[in-house]
Amino acid sequence: MDSLQDLRRALRAFAEERDWRQYHSPKNLAMALCGEIGELAEPFQWLTEEESKHLSGTQRQAVAQEMADVQLYLILLADALELDLLEEARNKMRINAERYPVAESRGRSVKYTEL
Amino acid sequence: MDSLQDLRRALRAFAEERDWRQYHSPKNLAMALCGEIGELAEPFQWLTEEESKHLSGTQRQAVAQEMADVQLYLILLADALELDLLEEARNKMRINAERYPVAESRGRSVKYTEL
Amino acid sequence: MDSLQDLRRALRAFAEERDWRQYHSPKNLAMALCGEIGELAEPFQWLTEEESKHLSGTQRQAVAQEMADVQLYLILLADALELDLLEEARNKMRINAERYPVAESRGRSVKYTEL
Amino acid sequence: MDSLQDLRRALRAFAEERDWRQYHSPKNLAMALCGEIGELAEPFQWLTEEESKHLSGTQRQAVAQEMADVQLYLILLADALELDLLEEARNKMRINAERYPVAESRGRSVKYTEL
Repeated sequence: MDSLQDLRRALRAFAEERDWRQYHSPKNLAMALCGEIGELAEPFQWLTEEESKHLSGTQRQAVAQEMADVQLYLILLADALELDLLEEARNKMRINAERYPVAESRGRSVKYTEL
Repeated sequence: MDSLQDLRRALRAFAEERDWRQYHSPKNLAMALCGEIGELAEPFQWLTEEESKHLSGTQRQAVAQEMADVQLYLILLADALELDLLEEARNKMRINAERYPVAESRGRSVKYTEL
Repeated sequence: MDSLQDLRRALRAFAEERDWRQYHSPKNLAMALCGEIGELAEPFQWLTEEESKHLSGTQRQAVAQEMADVQLYLILLADALELDLLEEARNKMRINAERYPVAESRGRSVKYTEL
Repeated sequence: MDSLQDLRRALRAFAEERDWRQYHSPKNLAMALCGEIGELAEPFQWLTEEESKHLSGTQRQAVAQEMADVQLYLILLADALELDLLEEARNKMRINAERYPVAESRGRSVKYTEL
């Protein structure tokens, strides 16, 4: 397995074997993403920004697992909506490049409320 | 650009050109993911599950952009923590396969609180 | 204790006794709310809407505790920002009443993307 | 209107007038809370903790409105589940007091992953 496409196929098989496709409506998958992001936020909530750059091995591993969950559900949602995640990500980068021209955006987080 | 690695490089360049790397601590990126997931949840909140399977073109495009934002921030966070997203996703799938054996998991969402 | 004000005082004392006020910046409290909402979303993610109306005693109690966490952090955040939650809620209801006139809003969730 | 109970009655009337009760299943309300918390997180995501303590008037007002939305949906969810928010909050404070004894918790955020 070496790409998002491979993961997509593996996830689909995983869900089918367990008869879990019935739960995987786009609405439910979006809600599951909310839960996973909450778990990803928790380990960071009381850390300073500086501390968050120097996680312990245990912390980093826990965060990595939560990030994996987010990635897996995102792939499942893309699969359910028949979207190509990488293509959408590339499109969004083009939109961002137009929305935030270098000259006007340099070092200003104020205007930069979303990526 | 055709992989997460390419997007990672492009995102890094994008942030550097705008002097935005200063904002991209892991804590902040995790928090930005919370914001993006909230935007992804909103279009689904009043839809039935069935409706969520049949989004209009406009809805689908809006959702695709929010998913792209989640993907992009997830790549930035992986970059900040020096994690390989695909490798972590594959590891998590192995953990899930052990945690949810087919025989015991078939059609049961109850035990299946997280993927 | 019988009001949000009483809870606010009790929460402040609770945090001070444990020397936890140092962690309670508005940013951190907002992030903690993300974590708690994620925990609140999880028990609902695979339920149908109908099932969510008929939680078991155990499910209902778990959800009640997550809702309590959200309420407590919301009070702490209001305290940190010196806001009166009830007053802000009443103000928001007035704004909503203007934004969603009865005649135009009846039975239409489409325009109703946020309360 | 001067209490959560009054807001609960007002919110119920507001939803009934607009025929919106049909959308207010516990699942949907929990999902709406995810969206609102995301909006609450966004203004804080690039701020330092220190900056988050000194919001501008505009920022503070925007945050106040998002907090109001969270409070209102939380009341609606409590109404849908027939829970008394204040009572649940008080119960949770008692649980927290047992879970985090002062002597062992002083100044330690590590154990303190949730309130």
